[in-house]
Amino acid sequence: MAARADIAIAGVPCDMSLGMRGAAQGPHSIRSGGAFLHYSPMTYRHQHVDLDPFEVLNVVDYGDAPVDPLSTDNSVPMIRSFVREIVESGSIPLLVGGDHSIAWPNIAAMSDVYGPGKVGVVHFDAHADASDNFFGHLSSHGSPIRRLIQDEHIPGSNFVQVGLRGFYPDQATHNWMQDQGMKTHFMAEIERYGFEKVMDTAVDQALAAGAEHLYISLDIDVLDPAYAPGTGTPEPAGLTPRELFPMLRRLSHEVGIVGAELVEVNPLVDPGYTTALVANRCLIEIITGVAMRKSGIVGRHYLDPVKAGDQWHIERP
Amino acid sequence: MAARADIAIAGVPCDMSLGMRGAAQGPHSIRSGGAFLHYSPMTYRHQHVDLDPFEVLNVVDYGDAPVDPLSTDNSVPMIRSFVREIVESGSIPLLVGGDHSIAWPNIAAMSDVYGPGKVGVVHFDAHADASDNFFGHLSSHGSPIRRLIQDEHIPGSNFVQVGLRGFYPDQATHNWMQDQGMKTHFMAEIERYGFEKVMDTAVDQALAAGAEHLYISLDIDVLDPAYAPGTGTPEPAGLTPRELFPMLRRLSHEVGIVGAELVEVNPLVDPGYTTALVANRCLIEIITGVAMRKSGIVGRHYLDPVKAGDQWHIERP
Amino acid sequence: MAARADIAIAGVPCDMSLGMRGAAQGPHSIRSGGAFLHYSPMTYRHQHVDLDPFEVLNVVDYGDAPVDPLSTDNSVPMIRSFVREIVESGSIPLLVGGDHSIAWPNIAAMSDVYGPGKVGVVHFDAHADASDNFFGHLSSHGSPIRRLIQDEHIPGSNFVQVGLRGFYPDQATHNWMQDQGMKTHFMAEIERYGFEKVMDTAVDQALAAGAEHLYISLDIDVLDPAYAPGTGTPEPAGLTPRELFPMLRRLSHEVGIVGAELVEVNPLVDPGYTTALVANRCLIEIITGVAMRKSGIVGRHYLDPVKAGDQWHIERP
Amino acid sequence: MAARADIAIAGVPCDMSLGMRGAAQGPHSIRSGGAFLHYSPMTYRHQHVDLDPFEVLNVVDYGDAPVDPLSTDNSVPMIRSFVREIVESGSIPLLVGGDHSIAWPNIAAMSDVYGPGKVGVVHFDAHADASDNFFGHLSSHGSPIRRLIQDEHIPGSNFVQVGLRGFYPDQATHNWMQDQGMKTHFMAEIERYGFEKVMDTAVDQALAAGAEHLYISLDIDVLDPAYAPGTGTPEPAGLTPRELFPMLRRLSHEVGIVGAELVEVNPLVDPGYTTALVANRCLIEIITGVAMRKSGIVGRHYLDPVKAGDQWHIERP
Amino acid sequence: MAARADIAIAGVPCDMSLGMRGAAQGPHSIRSGGAFLHYSPMTYRHQHVDLDPFEVLNVVDYGDAPVDPLSTDNSVPMIRSFVREIVESGSIPLLVGGDHSIAWPNIAAMSDVYGPGKVGVVHFDAHADASDNFFGHLSSHGSPIRRLIQDEHIPGSNFVQVGLRGFYPDQATHNWMQDQGMKTHFMAEIERYGFEKVMDTAVDQALAAGAEHLYISLDIDVLDPAYAPGTGTPEPAGLTPRELFPMLRRLSHEVGIVGAELVEVNPLVDPGYTTALVANRCLIEIITGVAMRKSGIVGRHYLDPVKAGDQWHIERP
Amino acid sequence: MAARADIAIAGVPCDMSLGMRGAAQGPHSIRSGGAFLHYSPMTYRHQHVDLDPFEVLNVVDYGDAPVDPLSTDNSVPMIRSFVREIVESGSIPLLVGGDHSIAWPNIAAMSDVYGPGKVGVVHFDAHADASDNFFGHLSSHGSPIRRLIQDEHIPGSNFVQVGLRGFYPDQATHNWMQDQGMKTHFMAEIERYGFEKVMDTAVDQALAAGAEHLYISLDIDVLDPAYAPGTGTPEPAGLTPRELFPMLRRLSHEVGIVGAELVEVNPLVDPGYTTALVANRCLIEIITGVAMRKSGIVGRHYLDPVKAGDQWHIERP
Repeated sequence: MAARADIAIAGVPCDMSLGMRGAAQGPHSIRSGGAFLHYSPMTYRHQHVDLDPFEVLNVVDYGDAPVDPLSTDNSVPMIRSFVREIVESGSIPLLVGGDHSIAWPNIAAMSDVYGPGKVGVVHFDAHADASDNFFGHLSSHGSPIRRLIQDEHIPGSNFVQVGLRGFYPDQATHNWMQDQGMKTHFMAEIERYGFEKVMDTAVDQALAAGAEHLYISLDIDVLDPAYAPGTGTPEPAGLTPRELFPMLRRLSHEVGIVGAELVEVNPLVDPGYTTALVANRCLIEIITGVAMRKSGIVGRHYLDPVKAGDQWHIERP
Repeated sequence: MAARADIAIAGVPCDMSLGMRGAAQGPHSIRSGGAFLHYSPMTYRHQHVDLDPFEVLNVVDYGDAPVDPLSTDNSVPMIRSFVREIVESGSIPLLVGGDHSIAWPNIAAMSDVYGPGKVGVVHFDAHADASDNFFGHLSSHGSPIRRLIQDEHIPGSNFVQVGLRGFYPDQATHNWMQDQGMKTHFMAEIERYGFEKVMDTAVDQALAAGAEHLYISLDIDVLDPAYAPGTGTPEPAGLTPRELFPMLRRLSHEVGIVGAELVEVNPLVDPGYTTALVANRCLIEIITGVAMRKSGIVGRHYLDPVKAGDQWHIERP
Repeated sequence: MAARADIAIAGVPCDMSLGMRGAAQGPHSIRSGGAFLHYSPMTYRHQHVDLDPFEVLNVVDYGDAPVDPLSTDNSVPMIRSFVREIVESGSIPLLVGGDHSIAWPNIAAMSDVYGPGKVGVVHFDAHADASDNFFGHLSSHGSPIRRLIQDEHIPGSNFVQVGLRGFYPDQATHNWMQDQGMKTHFMAEIERYGFEKVMDTAVDQALAAGAEHLYISLDIDVLDPAYAPGTGTPEPAGLTPRELFPMLRRLSHEVGIVGAELVEVNPLVDPGYTTALVANRCLIEIITGVAMRKSGIVGRHYLDPVKAGDQWHIERP
Repeated sequence: MAARADIAIAGVPCDMSLGMRGAAQGPHSIRSGGAFLHYSPMTYRHQHVDLDPFEVLNVVDYGDAPVDPLSTDNSVPMIRSFVREIVESGSIPLLVGGDHSIAWPNIAAMSDVYGPGKVGVVHFDAHADASDNFFGHLSSHGSPIRRLIQDEHIPGSNFVQVGLRGFYPDQATHNWMQDQGMKTHFMAEIERYGFEKVMDTAVDQALAAGAEHLYISLDIDVLDPAYAPGTGTPEPAGLTPRELFPMLRRLSHEVGIVGAELVEVNPLVDPGYTTALVANRCLIEIITGVAMRKSGIVGRHYLDPVKAGDQWHIERP
Repeated sequence: MAARADIAIAGVPCDMSLGMRGAAQGPHSIRSGGAFLHYSPMTYRHQHVDLDPFEVLNVVDYGDAPVDPLSTDNSVPMIRSFVREIVESGSIPLLVGGDHSIAWPNIAAMSDVYGPGKVGVVHFDAHADASDNFFGHLSSHGSPIRRLIQDEHIPGSNFVQVGLRGFYPDQATHNWMQDQGMKTHFMAEIERYGFEKVMDTAVDQALAAGAEHLYISLDIDVLDPAYAPGTGTPEPAGLTPRELFPMLRRLSHEVGIVGAELVEVNPLVDPGYTTALVANRCLIEIITGVAMRKSGIVGRHYLDPVKAGDQWHIERP
Repeated sequence: MAARADIAIAGVPCDMSLGMRGAAQGPHSIRSGGAFLHYSPMTYRHQHVDLDPFEVLNVVDYGDAPVDPLSTDNSVPMIRSFVREIVESGSIPLLVGGDHSIAWPNIAAMSDVYGPGKVGVVHFDAHADASDNFFGHLSSHGSPIRRLIQDEHIPGSNFVQVGLRGFYPDQATHNWMQDQGMKTHFMAEIERYGFEKVMDTAVDQALAAGAEHLYISLDIDVLDPAYAPGTGTPEPAGLTPRELFPMLRRLSHEVGIVGAELVEVNPLVDPGYTTALVANRCLIEIITGVAMRKSGIVGRHYLDPVKAGDQWHIERP
């Protein structure tokens, strides 16, 4: 079945890394709370680009990955195998966490299929997630990037990080990241030069270091807590949806992706139901970008709005 | 009594269109939760323009419109007659919903008094609200614009829409809107050119097509859910209050209005009590603009702050 | 013990002025809810400036000031004496309210130690807090600025106010403020010229009028309610953390401070736990600025990000 | 498929009667929020009666009834036909509202199949729901009982009401109810004689007046708001789950039922997620009673706990 | 106007005693949140006693008492004068706090009119509220009972306290209370003998010691936090509404009252909106009892339900 | 220091078993949210028994146990050693979870010190927690009882379980429990015979089977969700605080205890802050019972209230 799908959405309900705030319940909330796929009110015609991605693509719900709910370490091979199966079927996986520990098996599976060093990752996050270990565990929400580099799945120079801020990592981790050639865009840079300019650079960097395929790793905490309070380690002064959404579309459309993950949504601290909703829309932005690419739309997507006698102002490709 | 009022605020507690999230309770929450009129702490001197609109204007609370709580269709003539009575008394109605189904009777009443085709509408919303019908009903929160155009109250070219985004409408509705000559400003345009520039255009368009009077239709979901989670169909990546407030003032001040409506506030999903508050302030911005106009203040309201020996920095007309 | 501290954080759990929304519980929530000092996950290396302020500074928790919970008037001398003790020990006090009534004793204590007229105040707030009295009481959350000027602790020209908006103060208070030579930056100015430009002026004004020492008075309601719903008198259309954080750092770093206060955080109306968090981060931004200054970093802190082979993009001094 | 089911659970997402508090979202919340059927942690072995009802019965989810979301009047025939289809297939329908307006079509469908006057109803509710009409509408959450009696589906003497309190109905409705011979057990009686004694009477009355089949109509507001805050018209001083649960089991087990409905759950005012949970358990208690009856268990279900050497204390049939 | 009222409901928005949790907002929430008077859905016919108290009584809303929001001490004479005015007009005051500090002026006003020692008080509370002072203040939410006894308004033997539990008062206060001859019914007694038996004693004690008039002082925290979380000092293991409601009715009906107060409702910590609702119903129970007495109903109100052919089961007097 | 303590309160912030709802944050919330020890308003004189336990006992806060936050399996020896250290110092440990997985190391430590088979456990819980394993892990919140019996720390006949209900365990676990001779009191028994009668039996059983020392294991979900919504697996129709509190006191007073644990409090789903409060009071009830025993109070604690001239009604030993 998945063999015929363009995109396979799957949950990875894994939340062992400190167990903070219940991200294991993310897949359910993002699917249903955000009215994604299971409840379709009328249409999914994306107003910015004048296209219904679900008419262009066959998008399926692939269910949830098997996990050991008491051990991230044990869950790693289960998830890796599950994701590899999706990728080998020819679908683009959209993996909904769960915490960020799932990036290790998710992206390792990409490497399994496309080859070591062949995948580049644009990583949106408030945190670098590159710690050596967490209480001695290799698998945790603080260390997936370290694992992927050390296992030689993804070279450090293939990581483009966006949105980092706050108080992590420490100096030693910082130095290690620099030694790996990781490309990191802190909020300080975004505040200084504007998000669009920084992202132009990031888009250029995405496949610059020799990677042939792009994967998006999106931690919802890259958004400011005003937009996404429902997450485990919120950090103020983050991105806005008006910054993030076009960028997710651009990466999927202009560069093209082979997979993506969205992690760290926790419905238990989402009092206005806004985090699951914005997470749902992040997925649709990615899907829309994939659909634009499949539809043969070319060039940068910031086209001039069409003006037909002063009547219509829409960004159409 | 209303004959002597400059502005008559009235509730229209109508929420039949899908009954989502209790917008029928909006009037109460916006009046009391936002401390509007009923509880006046000290003063209403607007700090941006150095003027207390309630000293300039006689603003009254006109109570709530009669509605059939089990039928929007039945409510239409009741609301239309109620609003017409306010307008005929010489007051500017500020109508507080309730859901957006009330736009049909509200604006039809404006047409009754000022004449078909004489009223222009600036419509702030995440959604176009121009569907043909809703489950066969003419009156619903998804179809008021269609009704007003089809009934020849307001020509399509008299509608200026601002803030549209997300996944509505579908292609057929989109085409119909374009055929009507509606002027639509999507968030894509705002993100690309900036809100102020788009609004300069919108202000110019407001009465450009032959309309002689301006009416504002404000759906609170035009704001991003971070600012207004308490609404029925929130859509991320919307406007901010710093964008919306000056625009409401400008339209009321520079162009002048004959009425306005604010709809879709639902206090049951407003955990920080911020949606009713921001809705209350939207009303005061409109009232302030009306007061500026009545006070004889002319020109664009973005005047240079007065600098009296480097001491004061305020936008005074 | 405090004699050896660079910074002494202390609570002032005073909330008598109308008793709105429980700001007396602010110190507890900001300390623990925001994981400040008492719970340190890993590190406090500030990512924007590549420096862990707690490695540079000795920061202590000085406990809470004694207050009369039934009388702000009675609390004034208790708090003033408590703060004076901290300042005389050589520490920079960071005073966590409580409501804004504590500004009177807090800043009077600064004047006691540094001399009348020697301290300048940058005051971030949605409100001017310069009323003559409140129901006949000299001490209240609406009148501390008036007290400090009338008692000749701080001349009016030493006050730089930032972020004012909404409907306070009235005309008489406004006139009095102007007569005192206070420098006030309304949101209207910020919306028109941008926050950075306004703050460049404010930084220049901070010590311009003859003051020798800078004190920061930060009311959390200067932020928009989307970012800080948990406060007593929220006012929409305020600042964002991305505007406020760098400014707190700049004042502490470029100008240097002798003390600061953060007031009006109320955990009872903070449904997503975001207000205490953003307040906690405000304190750390101030501490970071102090640490930058102590570390001998000079010049404006908006340096160009270091680019080491296109790999690192961080704002390092 | 439904022909082989013992029980068919179906949603009736109808909430037109005043649109208060979103009961249309009840089916979704009760199914998923309460982990019912869709997510089965381990087992459903009921501890009070030592039996897993899902091993005894074939329980299916029959989906949602079609409704006109803008008209309860229009929805009546759609729902009636939907329920009749379930009953004619031989299944016991468990109908999850939605508001109480669905009782009219639900129970009319029972009458269609079993014959007028053949069905008795035990109606748990804080309110009598027997008004003549609601703003002129025949169908509303305040009038279903009146409709069923006037349409001669269910004679008044076949209604046994339990848990009434508060301030409804008025004198005229009260008199009409008495004229119909309805049997009403107010909370006053329960408080005076105890719930168990009142329910013994109610169980005896259930089929006493000539009815041959029993239907349960359960409005969640029969529970005290401490247990079920998430409902449209909560009324304090209601039943507890420890009173209600055994009674639902007893009616389904000792008397036997042909159908049941659970209405007025609104997840939007359910801050601790407890209302959907207790509603879910109400359904399982009913299912358990049906399973006990099918298993051939006879007699009153308050058997003495089995004591095997002082070790086990369980109520086993 | 008040001269013709049987009952005058008035707010006393005073909350100085520690300012915990915003009880000053109680009057607004209890009036509107509980739909009391301002919004009357259909009828107020009390189902337990088959009587609409608002048909029997003229009940008016007398507005709010003047208070000094920054000083309970200053508020005492203002409130006392306000309440005396109501009582002298011949109305029974129902005073809605605010915190319990208002009991001092409220009940002192009763003494002013009826004479020292002539009023007995049944005081429902989790706490004894008999402290000598609070941080040196005579007026506070912890000391009103002490004030009333020391000022010789109400002798200690005229106080009947019900529902005390938890950890207050200390030994010295306890001894002082015993010396005054106060009659205190702890929850321990209620748990042991049942609420009804304890209340029979309390009803008998109410006017036993020579008092000629009864006043009810009701702190909402006498209820368990499951029923009333929205209060300043909740204490688990309290009364239920099914215990409290009949008792309020009995005191007002069987004994007769000259006034009552309801205090310590705080809408800011009332997430399911249940505290304001149950408080509203407490007021209606008192009003119902007054109406029963005025209607000439005599005897204990636990009459046998009327059984008219097995059809009706209601407690009618 | 702990050597001199009567009671040592310690946190065990372990929540690996499914990571549901954040019980790892229980110790912090119960200590501070419930105002326990760190914030003492006035006194802790227990009103039911007229005794301040903190005057009788030296109670210390022993900090938190070390845990591996990513592995319950790894945490077991760390916790066991930590608890053993407390017990060996002569203190009674009061261990605050964390989830119920901590019962294994907690109680194993008791066995280490007092000897295998010498400790009896009264286990209050909605669930039996006796599963063989959880996804292959020996340590989980569903299996601690099984571990303690299989490791021969505590014989099955030394377990008295109270409050079980809902749908766990399955038949096989049920049979195993019976084979072990466990004494289980389901809610069915409590509903039938009353809690007091069942607890008389349970108190008698506590040390009947040969155990010499009593330990209390309290899962907060034994309370009904109306009283304790903030927990991972709430189950309706549970105990009330008025049932549970006296029982905790009785066990600690009449039987005497060597330790206790309170688990499964999750502050993230505790919207009215009532769960942490009631959990705090549970601890104080236990401490009070220990203090009563140390004070030499003998006999059953339901003594007749002392009546000194009809004035005092308190349960004093």
